[in-house]
Amino acid sequence: MSTPTDPRAARSRAAILVAARSLLLDEGPAAITHQRVAQKAGVGRATVYRHWSQPGHLLHDAMTGIEMPFFREPETPVRPWLRTRLQRLADALATPQIAGVLLTLMQGALWDPGIAAQRDECYRDISENLRKALALAVADHEIEMSADPHDLSALLVGPILYHATMRAGSVSPQLIEQLIDSLGEWRP
Amino acid sequence: MSTPTDPRAARSRAAILVAARSLLLDEGPAAITHQRVAQKAGVGRATVYRHWSQPGHLLHDAMTGIEMPFFREPETPVRPWLRTRLQRLADALATPQIAGVLLTLMQGALWDPGIAAQRDECYRDISENLRKALALAVADHEIEMSADPHDLSALLVGPILYHATMRAGSVSPQLIEQLIDSLGEWRP
Repeated sequence: MSTPTDPRAARSRAAILVAARSLLLDEGPAAITHQRVAQKAGVGRATVYRHWSQPGHLLHDAMTGIEMPFFREPETPVRPWLRTRLQRLADALATPQIAGVLLTLMQGALWDPGIAAQRDECYRDISENLRKALALAVADHEIEMSADPHDLSALLVGPILYHATMRAGSVSPQLIEQLIDSLGEWRP
Repeated sequence: MSTPTDPRAARSRAAILVAARSLLLDEGPAAITHQRVAQKAGVGRATVYRHWSQPGHLLHDAMTGIEMPFFREPETPVRPWLRTRLQRLADALATPQIAGVLLTLMQGALWDPGIAAQRDECYRDISENLRKALALAVADHEIEMSADPHDLSALLVGPILYHATMRAGSVSPQLIEQLIDSLGEWRP
């Protein structure tokens, strides 16, 4: 949706987005209905409807404001940095809020091209960051990598996401070590 | 919901479930509304409402009828069997239908205890089957396993699910070999 130029309309639009994001994080995407969002934002249903005629578009725009800042700014030595960042990802995905946003992205992308574009961007971001980090480790002779750089995010993020959302338990430090080990031969 | 004893009510209930399952597979969980399901099942909205006052419960019951028969009946040698089954899983998850049902399970479980129970059952089923298969490989001296048996499904299914749903490309045979290799020392 384009941003309205009328200040009152811009204010109500912003309030609706804040309300939708808050409902998304607290109760999941099913809570993003015209009625619930209007109630939460303190505006009329017709106002929500005027800005977003379909709840799906509102969900899309609400997700655009949520960042997934994983694996940014790698540091050497890479191995302890990676261990900390994977643990941080596991902790984040153990909260229904973050897991919910990522699963909504993955699920919504199956049926909605707009959400698919957001999912692609999130995937590229995570993959690029991991590629850069491991390239740093290779350049520093910290690892002789056997994994395909294109598979890094599947190999590292996949098991943690699956574990956090299917098993709904905490990820063990052993699993994280095993994931790091599986990338190649690390030098002591 | 309890199954009705009146034959006409039982027929309409069955027709509604078939319609809901078909909508879920074709268009995703957002399509499961009273209106869409009633239209598809050829019954009135009030009839759908009488059986399921909340679309969430209908989604829950529709998912109960969908099987995820992965990794059943392991065979020796285990390695080629596992390779075939992982490839089959990757192919299944490349269809939005199967990926959609699994992601709906994972996402719905965050907010709905009934769906969480279904997710737990699906997780247990996959994990048990993989544990049995790898126990067979260990007993046959095919592998000296270094992976924790509790992590098998995260290590094998996690990357494939992530790859299929985040990258939306096909899973390479190399990735599947690497996943199998990561479980321990396989004997030639």
